[in-house]
Amino acid sequence: MMSEDFYIVPEEMHNALVRAAYLHRGYDEAEGDAAARFSAYTAWHGIRTHNAIKALHLDHLFGSAVGGCVPGAVIEKRECRFEASEVWNANRKLGQATAYEAIETAISLADRFGIGQVSVDNAFHYLWGGGYVMDAAKRGYIAYTNCTAALAEVVPFKGKFPTLGTNPHSWGFPTTDAIGYPVVIDWATSVVAMGRVQQMAREGTGQLPPDSAVDQEGNPTTDPQAAVALLPFGAHKGYGLSLINELMGALIGGSLPTLRSRPDQGPEDEKRTPSFYFQVIHPDAVSGGAFAKGRDQQANVKAVLDDILGHGNEHCLLPGQIEAAGAARSDRAGGLLFSKAEIEAFIEVAEECEQVPWDLDTLTPYLD
Amino acid sequence: MMSEDFYIVPEEMHNALVRAAYLHRGYDEAEGDAAARFSAYTAWHGIRTHNAIKALHLDHLFGSAVGGCVPGAVIEKRECRFEASEVWNANRKLGQATAYEAIETAISLADRFGIGQVSVDNAFHYLWGGGYVMDAAKRGYIAYTNCTAALAEVVPFKGKFPTLGTNPHSWGFPTTDAIGYPVVIDWATSVVAMGRVQQMAREGTGQLPPDSAVDQEGNPTTDPQAAVALLPFGAHKGYGLSLINELMGALIGGSLPTLRSRPDQGPEDEKRTPSFYFQVIHPDAVSGGAFAKGRDQQANVKAVLDDILGHGNEHCLLPGQIEAAGAARSDRAGGLLFSKAEIEAFIEVAEECEQVPWDLDTLTPYLD
Repeated sequence: MMSEDFYIVPEEMHNALVRAAYLHRGYDEAEGDAAARFSAYTAWHGIRTHNAIKALHLDHLFGSAVGGCVPGAVIEKRECRFEASEVWNANRKLGQATAYEAIETAISLADRFGIGQVSVDNAFHYLWGGGYVMDAAKRGYIAYTNCTAALAEVVPFKGKFPTLGTNPHSWGFPTTDAIGYPVVIDWATSVVAMGRVQQMAREGTGQLPPDSAVDQEGNPTTDPQAAVALLPFGAHKGYGLSLINELMGALIGGSLPTLRSRPDQGPEDEKRTPSFYFQVIHPDAVSGGAFAKGRDQQANVKAVLDDILGHGNEHCLLPGQIEAAGAARSDRAGGLLFSKAEIEAFIEVAEECEQVPWDLDTLTPYLD
Repeated sequence: MMSEDFYIVPEEMHNALVRAAYLHRGYDEAEGDAAARFSAYTAWHGIRTHNAIKALHLDHLFGSAVGGCVPGAVIEKRECRFEASEVWNANRKLGQATAYEAIETAISLADRFGIGQVSVDNAFHYLWGGGYVMDAAKRGYIAYTNCTAALAEVVPFKGKFPTLGTNPHSWGFPTTDAIGYPVVIDWATSVVAMGRVQQMAREGTGQLPPDSAVDQEGNPTTDPQAAVALLPFGAHKGYGLSLINELMGALIGGSLPTLRSRPDQGPEDEKRTPSFYFQVIHPDAVSGGAFAKGRDQQANVKAVLDDILGHGNEHCLLPGQIEAAGAARSDRAGGLLFSKAEIEAFIEVAEECEQVPWDLDTLTPYLD
């Protein structure tokens, strides 16, 4: 991250601008707060691919500007005969607001039943699943989410044409007492992101990894400029993981993946919305309570992780460790870190929503 | 499968022998029935890597012969304040008997709460997680299981030394009404199985895929004879999936992965047993009920799968399709199909447990 110059932005200053930008687009106060809170969380953890700039850009492309997301939408909670489960119709409400409420509800269900789930139909992009499960994991829970990604950009294993989303999975584990931060396993089921392919194509540099993309004819290519669709990671294994999201989406109420987020294509009476699935587990509800050497649960988790990262593996990273280092850096800086280019994008955002723009000269440069 | 000659073994004949073999080793009637039922299920679906021969071999290496599995063990169900969750101490009971009971319990919990989980401490190898979730999926449920594999044979991403199990994940989806069989996503988190590496090393033929194994020094190798440990599939992504099983195992009550199934190593008061995790979801508990074009849930699942396997992807397979084809073949044959070498192994099993051995001359050859 630190190859560019960064500036320190106080969190309140960031949140005020992001909130204003969402309000300017018609979102209500609570939605603006959720959007600001989530973007601050991504920036705090060094997640530059899903910061406020990206969130607002996504909202512009697929969201409030085109009807994919509906400001002020009210979530309908469907009658459900199962006590540890809720099923919601989000009515295309802002993804961050929906996801925060869903994970909070799943936590309440886990507190009562040991495990709880919330399924969401008619959703709009929640940006970074890892953020919601990380938050739950920091609070002591095992959390999981998947969603059907906005667009079908990924080709099934041995296929030719993109009919699957990048379909991420995100798991958070309550390991803070053991190692200082939650293990968060969070990634798309494609080898690379389409944004990365497009960036390489624009810059005209570099080759894609083998078996990460296909060309117009559906043949594998490593040329970013020839790539038109992505391949799943790990051959049939990543393909299977991607199918999980499509199957959950289909069971919840999603429609054809190739029509998702494409209002201009296909029969009018198909649905275009992604689906979300959330699940939270209380750690006491899986504990056998009989840990070796008199350890408690967290001490046992620590012993297991120490064993995995011992024996010559001391230099390996745990998933979530980079984000934890990002958070430590933000903590040391006393604010959110943004590059000059990002600050300039925020200045444009301020102009769009008629706020006093940030002034690069008054921001403190970050010295690592 | 059909490059060798196969013989048709009536299921009752297979089950009688397998039951007798387990009883001969001290297991009780119910355990013998569970073992026979599960082995018949694997053979019926063409899963040759986990048939009765392999099950009995595994029991010999790690199970009843050495104390890793305890015939007649009684499962203790731990007091649990969470209604949708159970936590068991399996006391090293036979894996198949434990897993059948656990998935049945998780189904009952899902019937009541929409989702249910059963965690199992002090377990013994359940052989093929795909079988239990397939069975639940055929009955209309979404089912999931993971376990910590017997031995630590897999090196963490960028590591040198094997400290992770092959740690499989298995998901079953209720798609039978939509496509004729359940989608079952089921694989280890290593690129290849150690058994496959050892077979290639013995036969002295072939090279391993790149980044699938490491040599004594922890450097990647494609030479089966130099390979001493495996690598996770998909780099950090497969590593993350493998960590999930270790973390669930650690939360349930498992001890250090490098000591698992190794009674002769490490401090006496460490545990050596794998852990199981089971979860079942009722499909009604995730259904938003608002499917496009008036479809019901299964019709929607079919429409989504048709879309994924359309557009030039018609030749792609769905996970579970090969097993469904195996089952169709067994159904046409009217029995379980075994190779000549497998029949000979069953004849040895019959001799071990003093049963009338099968006679190759009286078995009907299978003509595809």
